[in-house]
Amino acid sequence: MKPFRTALALTLLMTTTALADTKTIATGDLGLVIERAKGSVILIDQSDRAALARIEGLGDLSHASIVYSPDERYAYVFGRDGGLTKVDIVERKIANRVVQGGNSIGGAISDDGKLVAVSNYEPGGVKIFDADTLELVADLPTGSKTIGLVDAPGRKFVFTMWDTGETWIADMSAVKSGGEAEITKIPDMGEYPYDALVTANGRTYITGLFGEDGLTALDLWADNPEPIRVLPNYGRGQEEMPVYKMPHLEGWAHTGAEFVLPAVGHHEVLWIDANSLEETARTKTYGQPVFAMARPDGRQVWVNFAHPLNDTIQVIDSVSKEIVHEFKPGPAVLHMEFTPRGNEIWVSVRDENKVKIYDTHTFELLREIEADSPSGIFFTARAHRTGL
Amino acid sequence: MKPFRTALALTLLMTTTALADTKTIATGDLGLVIERAKGSVILIDQSDRAALARIEGLGDLSHASIVYSPDERYAYVFGRDGGLTKVDIVERKIANRVVQGGNSIGGAISDDGKLVAVSNYEPGGVKIFDADTLELVADLPTGSKTIGLVDAPGRKFVFTMWDTGETWIADMSAVKSGGEAEITKIPDMGEYPYDALVTANGRTYITGLFGEDGLTALDLWADNPEPIRVLPNYGRGQEEMPVYKMPHLEGWAHTGAEFVLPAVGHHEVLWIDANSLEETARTKTYGQPVFAMARPDGRQVWVNFAHPLNDTIQVIDSVSKEIVHEFKPGPAVLHMEFTPRGNEIWVSVRDENKVKIYDTHTFELLREIEADSPSGIFFTARAHRTGL
Repeated sequence: MKPFRTALALTLLMTTTALADTKTIATGDLGLVIERAKGSVILIDQSDRAALARIEGLGDLSHASIVYSPDERYAYVFGRDGGLTKVDIVERKIANRVVQGGNSIGGAISDDGKLVAVSNYEPGGVKIFDADTLELVADLPTGSKTIGLVDAPGRKFVFTMWDTGETWIADMSAVKSGGEAEITKIPDMGEYPYDALVTANGRTYITGLFGEDGLTALDLWADNPEPIRVLPNYGRGQEEMPVYKMPHLEGWAHTGAEFVLPAVGHHEVLWIDANSLEETARTKTYGQPVFAMARPDGRQVWVNFAHPLNDTIQVIDSVSKEIVHEFKPGPAVLHMEFTPRGNEIWVSVRDENKVKIYDTHTFELLREIEADSPSGIFFTARAHRTGL
Repeated sequence: MKPFRTALALTLLMTTTALADTKTIATGDLGLVIERAKGSVILIDQSDRAALARIEGLGDLSHASIVYSPDERYAYVFGRDGGLTKVDIVERKIANRVVQGGNSIGGAISDDGKLVAVSNYEPGGVKIFDADTLELVADLPTGSKTIGLVDAPGRKFVFTMWDTGETWIADMSAVKSGGEAEITKIPDMGEYPYDALVTANGRTYITGLFGEDGLTALDLWADNPEPIRVLPNYGRGQEEMPVYKMPHLEGWAHTGAEFVLPAVGHHEVLWIDANSLEETARTKTYGQPVFAMARPDGRQVWVNFAHPLNDTIQVIDSVSKEIVHEFKPGPAVLHMEFTPRGNEIWVSVRDENKVKIYDTHTFELLREIEADSPSGIFFTARAHRTGL
């Protein structure tokens, strides 16, 4: 009888223990950190300032980004190797994975959460997948390296061709009922567009140019959007400064009435009137800015810098346009992500293998989390925003 | 040795079981609908366009609003009877409930999600509770009916006194470390402020006045905020039109460069420059507007109307400022809530006992959900926004 009694006791104990240890959490305050060297992601909890789990096997994440499903359950991770990995943050595992191209540069999710799009350097073009199954829904070859892919309201994707300087708007609304993607092509966006962004309301799409100075904007609300040249002096300029890293355009900060834009090759950020897209001011910075990110309320802009000055962050007040705080989180600050209401910021310090969390009002360091060569940090709250 | 081996096996097994039983529930696309007559709420799923459960026992919900915890798990429901009910949408039950005043008018949650504030008509004042336990953290008597309570960045709450025309800013950041609430009082906001709003970035607080025409704004970014009178002709005006319902100021729509404001007593909405707060245009409407709500991208403004014209919705294009769509969802359209990225809208039709879901691009009716006298609809995505 003894073995039986032991087994029974063991069962009872297990049940009790399991129940007592069962912890239920919701997904509104979760997120993922890219571990670029390991091909893994870490599941993080914003409220508890904690790492919950590591999920491995996502391929080459040396340049990776993430979008989320509307229920904040699934993350779509776009890897450098063309891998599109669907991570289930509830089950804490990979739900599905396809290698959809040879060299991918980013992706987007449609406003209804039903379609995931990926843009490719090799072989070029955009592929659009069913967000549920990752089955191919549309293949849009463009004959060019394709960059600057964003979503826009009305089940649209917008993207731009490096080689031909065209922007395409793909309206996928007819695809719901068995129709085709409807493509609008806009030529003459400029020479060698290398990145693009769309404003948070999905109205203004702006491409950065590698082949010439200036930027090109499109009003996506117009019946026939046409290229609008803005900031003609934006770029490397006559001095041909060495550019260590072209700034990320997705890092454009919107402070309300103005945008803040990292200069190319210069140690400064530019302030741009959000309506006229004309330059209003410049602020000198510590190094060549990579990301200039506005706290969600727009009162502060946090700036990190290109190698070799990438150990530092500066914080600019958006009213005085002056630097109000400067500190060194550590070697290789790669990315920053604000909590959705802006009270805290999470910072990746790659070469210290840490993510550091700061209070944005007191600048106090609140917590450090271990991570292997962390780069991008992405909170699930992104699920509810346009154009990421 | 046998007992030891058993103990080891048991430990391993327990560890595995405990981990496997950690439950995560995706809550990003959920929401609650107020059933005003029954004192209950319905849990809804935006992606499935479905009702999932009814939760009862919330008291008098004849005028109720909701805020959410940052993890999108808990809803704080503010009822007319002074009840503050914490609903666990994961467990689908009431987690806690206190009756904190005699006649409550609304509430807010701090940017870090740790404090919930409620403003009261009777006995007046604001009470602030621990969001976790609902224990009283601070009691702020104001000697007046208290209205227009909102949260602002930096663990602040802002609210206004009907009787004395003062606005108070309560900075709760010191309370974290055992300190007191720090109160800034701003007199001369105007005669009988009846409601207020804060802009989405938390910068501009605006009160509506019952006792005189015009509105009063405060720049919360200023070191010493002072009352700024705006729109001096806003109000009932000389004609003294009968006012069936004072418009909700929280319904102010921000379309990017402009706000849209329901007129008082007149059949029109006003367009206001977001920077100067000066009037730029008016659009004639079907009735006296109650809510004028911008689709999240700002391209459309949806307007509902006061009794007896409350069976109709008009949709205004924010570029042409013309009405582009008009329809009758049914008797007593009380509230509208957009999905966070604006592709759909949910509409409460009280006297038909239905919530109706529409595509905002095609205006197609997508689904109807049964609900008992539905009023407010609140999606969990509100957790990530300021000033609601």
